[in-house]
Amino acid sequence: MQTISMRIQYDGSGYHGWQRQSRMKSVQETLEKTLSKAFNQKIEIDGSGRTDAGVHALGQCISFKVNLTMPIENVKSVVNRRLPNDIYIESVKLEPDDFHARYCSIGKTYIYKMYTDRERNPFLDKYYYHYEHTLDLSAIREAMDCFVGTYDFKAFMASGSNAENTVRTIYQFDLDTSNNKLAFTITGDGFLYNMVRIIIGSLIHVGTGKISASDIPSIIMSGDRNRAKYTAPAQGLYLKSVYYTEDELQNFILKN
Amino acid sequence: MQTISMRIQYDGSGYHGWQRQSRMKSVQETLEKTLSKAFNQKIEIDGSGRTDAGVHALGQCISFKVNLTMPIENVKSVVNRRLPNDIYIESVKLEPDDFHARYCSIGKTYIYKMYTDRERNPFLDKYYYHYEHTLDLSAIREAMDCFVGTYDFKAFMASGSNAENTVRTIYQFDLDTSNNKLAFTITGDGFLYNMVRIIIGSLIHVGTGKISASDIPSIIMSGDRNRAKYTAPAQGLYLKSVYYTEDELQNFILKN
Repeated sequence: MQTISMRIQYDGSGYHGWQRQSRMKSVQETLEKTLSKAFNQKIEIDGSGRTDAGVHALGQCISFKVNLTMPIENVKSVVNRRLPNDIYIESVKLEPDDFHARYCSIGKTYIYKMYTDRERNPFLDKYYYHYEHTLDLSAIREAMDCFVGTYDFKAFMASGSNAENTVRTIYQFDLDTSNNKLAFTITGDGFLYNMVRIIIGSLIHVGTGKISASDIPSIIMSGDRNRAKYTAPAQGLYLKSVYYTEDELQNFILKN
Repeated sequence: MQTISMRIQYDGSGYHGWQRQSRMKSVQETLEKTLSKAFNQKIEIDGSGRTDAGVHALGQCISFKVNLTMPIENVKSVVNRRLPNDIYIESVKLEPDDFHARYCSIGKTYIYKMYTDRERNPFLDKYYYHYEHTLDLSAIREAMDCFVGTYDFKAFMASGSNAENTVRTIYQFDLDTSNNKLAFTITGDGFLYNMVRIIIGSLIHVGTGKISASDIPSIIMSGDRNRAKYTAPAQGLYLKSVYYTEDELQNFILKN
């Protein structure tokens, strides 16, 4: 048996999220079925993490064990030919036996895309969060700085989810704007359930003046989910990269 | 009763085409249901033409009769608020009683989008036709010129469809390329069923060398659908504009 990793892109709009579940089409199940057919054996994959319904991936990472029945160089094209058009394998790699897409991850980058415009664009609906009003971008940038560092992010975790350790480190948090489009890029050692969407939700509240940038540190400190109420919608969220070595992580941070 | 026209945009990927049909979600039915609720009366709409499953619109035009129960200035926002996010009304206009979105149309522009790349982009799948190989663009441009003018386009009509008159005039046919993306823009007085997709299919055959640009005039002359075999897929096609006056049509042609 060999251990393989793959970098995967998917348009999440046609799926009920990453995780395999009965009766609903998931990205995981679609990949497992396709891989099982391609390799003619039952394949079970591990993803670096789950993505919710409607969330996209530009660089999800998966790993699995397989009895390789074809040269590793052929895997990418053989499997891509069998996949539906909204999922694509970018690269394939032979890994050491103890590699695991989830447990070996040391960091991740997410992108959150939105646009502000009085007019709604029906073609962006599945890929951007549409916000009708303009936002105070300088207040948002000020608030973003408050998230960078090592904190207990319990206030930014979906209620009902439980993580033993809710301390995370955000390494970098950037905002690109062009015309009326906003792209937030956030890199950290890991993220709690819904953490990125709750952070973006809070930034939108800062941008509309509902709360001020200077409230953010005390919301983090409070550890109280009720103080970070708003979860930005799924369709703007993209898992951009998963890192397995310090070099990969540092390269991304330096480039951006 | 007043006569209203609306310019509509829609992402066609979630619909089984324009035309109302039992059990399948269509753009027409979705609009009619929403308009009927908004105006609290049964509304039936006419589109400038039908779009097939997966085809998009940047500027479809519809018309309908209504007993206006609100100021015309409010209609756009009231109806948009009730529409699903993949359909959007761009503008609303009060028309003379005899206006009809289909019969009064004097021309249309379609755009066809594709990209050529060995790598497939899962996010473009519903909006572009993906072609794995590079195309001979100068042969394609040469072939495009053969379509401009007034011809019997019977060879470029879906088999099985019947139009009394198959003569159409193509006013303008342009190709924009940037990186590996191609956008064909074609303007004519009207188009037969599947005509744009069959023309694009023939251009792809020219671009790969299966036929040569100089074959196009004789294919047109032949009137034989078997000589224009390939219909390019629906997802790359966008109804860009519908014209109701010579001025509108000339303005578009001059601008492009």
